[in-house]
Amino acid sequence: MPTSPVDYARNNRSRYLEMLKELLSIPSISTQSVHNADMQRCAEWLTQTMSSIGLKNTAIYPTPGHPVVYGEWLEAGPNAPTALIYGHYDVQPPDPLELWETPPFEPSVRGDNIYARGATDDKGQLFIHLAAVDALFKTTGALPVNIKFIIEGEEESGGKNLDPFIKSHQDLLAADCALISDTSIVSPEQPSIVYALRGLATLEIEVKSAARDLHSGQYGGAIHNPLLALSQIISAMFDENNRITIPGFYDDVLPLGDEERDLLAALPDTLLQETGARNLWGDPAFTPVERISARPTFEVHGIVGGYTDEGVKTVIPAEATAKISMRLVPNQDPQKIAQRFTDYVNALAPDTVTLKIRQTGLGNGAVIDRNDPSMMAASNAYQAAFRRRPIFTREGGSIPVVAAFQRILDLPVVMMGFGLTDDRLHSPNEKFHLPNFYRGIETSIHFMREYAKLKAA
Amino acid sequence: MPTSPVDYARNNRSRYLEMLKELLSIPSISTQSVHNADMQRCAEWLTQTMSSIGLKNTAIYPTPGHPVVYGEWLEAGPNAPTALIYGHYDVQPPDPLELWETPPFEPSVRGDNIYARGATDDKGQLFIHLAAVDALFKTTGALPVNIKFIIEGEEESGGKNLDPFIKSHQDLLAADCALISDTSIVSPEQPSIVYALRGLATLEIEVKSAARDLHSGQYGGAIHNPLLALSQIISAMFDENNRITIPGFYDDVLPLGDEERDLLAALPDTLLQETGARNLWGDPAFTPVERISARPTFEVHGIVGGYTDEGVKTVIPAEATAKISMRLVPNQDPQKIAQRFTDYVNALAPDTVTLKIRQTGLGNGAVIDRNDPSMMAASNAYQAAFRRRPIFTREGGSIPVVAAFQRILDLPVVMMGFGLTDDRLHSPNEKFHLPNFYRGIETSIHFMREYAKLKAA
Repeated sequence: MPTSPVDYARNNRSRYLEMLKELLSIPSISTQSVHNADMQRCAEWLTQTMSSIGLKNTAIYPTPGHPVVYGEWLEAGPNAPTALIYGHYDVQPPDPLELWETPPFEPSVRGDNIYARGATDDKGQLFIHLAAVDALFKTTGALPVNIKFIIEGEEESGGKNLDPFIKSHQDLLAADCALISDTSIVSPEQPSIVYALRGLATLEIEVKSAARDLHSGQYGGAIHNPLLALSQIISAMFDENNRITIPGFYDDVLPLGDEERDLLAALPDTLLQETGARNLWGDPAFTPVERISARPTFEVHGIVGGYTDEGVKTVIPAEATAKISMRLVPNQDPQKIAQRFTDYVNALAPDTVTLKIRQTGLGNGAVIDRNDPSMMAASNAYQAAFRRRPIFTREGGSIPVVAAFQRILDLPVVMMGFGLTDDRLHSPNEKFHLPNFYRGIETSIHFMREYAKLKAA
Repeated sequence: MPTSPVDYARNNRSRYLEMLKELLSIPSISTQSVHNADMQRCAEWLTQTMSSIGLKNTAIYPTPGHPVVYGEWLEAGPNAPTALIYGHYDVQPPDPLELWETPPFEPSVRGDNIYARGATDDKGQLFIHLAAVDALFKTTGALPVNIKFIIEGEEESGGKNLDPFIKSHQDLLAADCALISDTSIVSPEQPSIVYALRGLATLEIEVKSAARDLHSGQYGGAIHNPLLALSQIISAMFDENNRITIPGFYDDVLPLGDEERDLLAALPDTLLQETGARNLWGDPAFTPVERISARPTFEVHGIVGGYTDEGVKTVIPAEATAKISMRLVPNQDPQKIAQRFTDYVNALAPDTVTLKIRQTGLGNGAVIDRNDPSMMAASNAYQAAFRRRPIFTREGGSIPVVAAFQRILDLPVVMMGFGLTDDRLHSPNEKFHLPNFYRGIETSIHFMREYAKLKAA
């Protein structure tokens, strides 16, 4: 009896792990131009790997920013559906480096996990589908469905080049559903499917006062310190209930229905344990789980300016910049919110400083139809691999491409994730849970079979 | 006829400039431990130079931090007074490096100025007195007064080791006056003597929320972002009139008398031109010149935490730290103010974060008797070298050693400066005005002669 794809995948776990380690060793940090050559190297690794496992027409498509990687196999027959599998090969910067137990680009297996930058976000998750394709080809010589891979390099840098790429390659990318593994499941024993995502608007506020850095003893008291001015602007963004004060910010936020509130209330609230926070924070009108998933947010990610090295330097910096983002719920328009924010900050700014606001990234939120055949196929696939039916969840994070696939390609988008909430994505010691990696490969194999069946039915 | 000391100094300007360049080439940055060897090298350069020009008992005194440099000449006779000349050989960090036209530790003469970190603060100014001593020895074989040099290495790092050093070396440092050149004069044509200085308390506020950096998509909305919490604390430090809200902060601030307000009103207000600010800022109850000199201040010098590199990283940092300082007027006690600040911040902090406050430096303000013989000698010396009588000013900066000399050694302290307000101390392209450097050497020679005369009278 020939080996089944699932058995083959089980027998080849260590080989797939070694391949994943190769991919994780490439520091493909899209936000830092010093890593541009690594980005190219990572794109080449992917096309070579895709070709070697049997995908066709693999190519690196240039964009004005980092390239898009493509590969396909379209020989499943005239009635077979096509799944467009999306992933991203870029990763977050690894700093602060000193907090990593092992170097971020030297993948290290400890216990049940593999530790590296990008392990869960998204290299480990995207590689799952390459391994599934490999196992199917090696054992059956074919795939149950047509497959197209699109793997981008600007997910972590608010990249503006993917939407235009999708728009100008609609024939290339035409499919029946999109499949994305870039989200978390509730636990290793409880798979879950994200059916709603928040959108994102990232901006920078730059405040200038004097023409040069000044000595605080010489000028302190007569110059509006840009770090103070920024602090005043930032703190004015919240009222005493931790609600965002930008006029009109909540206008397009749809009220949470009872069914959704019940669904969210059923999820475990382990936020305190996961984060180690002293107490949770936020708008008391909503539960913490609602706040992190179904409500919009405002965050400061860094404040640049002045003296931040060891010791004391009594400088009034000439300028200071805050990097901020707002997570948005599906009905909020990122462009409109960015404009409202800009108007509000300009209205708040006193005439003692000069202000510049830069938009660095915008992405729409999304809600997915839970009854699409692709969603049902994913549910059956999880059931087969995890022996447990998945639950449906909202995710606080933003995957702008989900809205793009919906809007531009009119596709249902299945977020079939294998991460865990303690994977520390974007943090030091990012990891991927290896049992999820291996079950993920099996889930992907099952998905292709289930989708072929359900779509034909 | 033998050459006079002043003529000798004029004939040796280029030699003194070359020696100053040597001193400025040493990156003696006291706040950065990577420069510890440079600190030692700078101290050795000073003792060698002092010995070579004829000073005695030159020595490098170790402290728990950076060493103190000492040298003396005490052979002026039993009736001659003793002046204790203070300077500091450490300098501020030079960043941001990219804004320097020439490298900060490669001194460059352009036009009437020498550009280098430490040019005016304080290497150029302290070297004036070594050149004056040299000119006097070379031409007369003696000095009109006894001289002791004390040159410290922690002025820019809020050093805590000088006060204990002075306390434990009171006999070594005993004198009739202290002379410090570490301040600015009104213009190259209008010398001025600082008779009042602000004190300084520098602190760090560290705010922690979660145990690790978090993804803002995953946890945003439920965790108190430490950068937001810091912004809220900082903006709560000021009311709508830009007055500091720390309870009791102004309690010990003496009201400004009419005579002082008239004196300050007579000073030119060129703050807008000097700083290039859009508009001045501050408490409308006081003039800008009063605010920068006779009123206490609160400044933020840098905010550490989160992502500050190129691009976007949607992180909620686990912690963030603000480096702050308060400039204090003479009657305010830095220790008491630091405590009031600490109590206030702790009262403001919500239970969603954990707070730590560190004191990184405390220094008292000072007011000097304008009628002391040493002050009159300085006035005559300026008149002789600049052909113009100096005016008396308040300085916003802090020279903690002034209060220490007053308190511990009971000395009048003459602040006979040669800097200019546009010297960019603590900023890129710090400079020293060479005509002030050369006139400074002559002023120092005149001071020693005048002080000998007036003290004998």
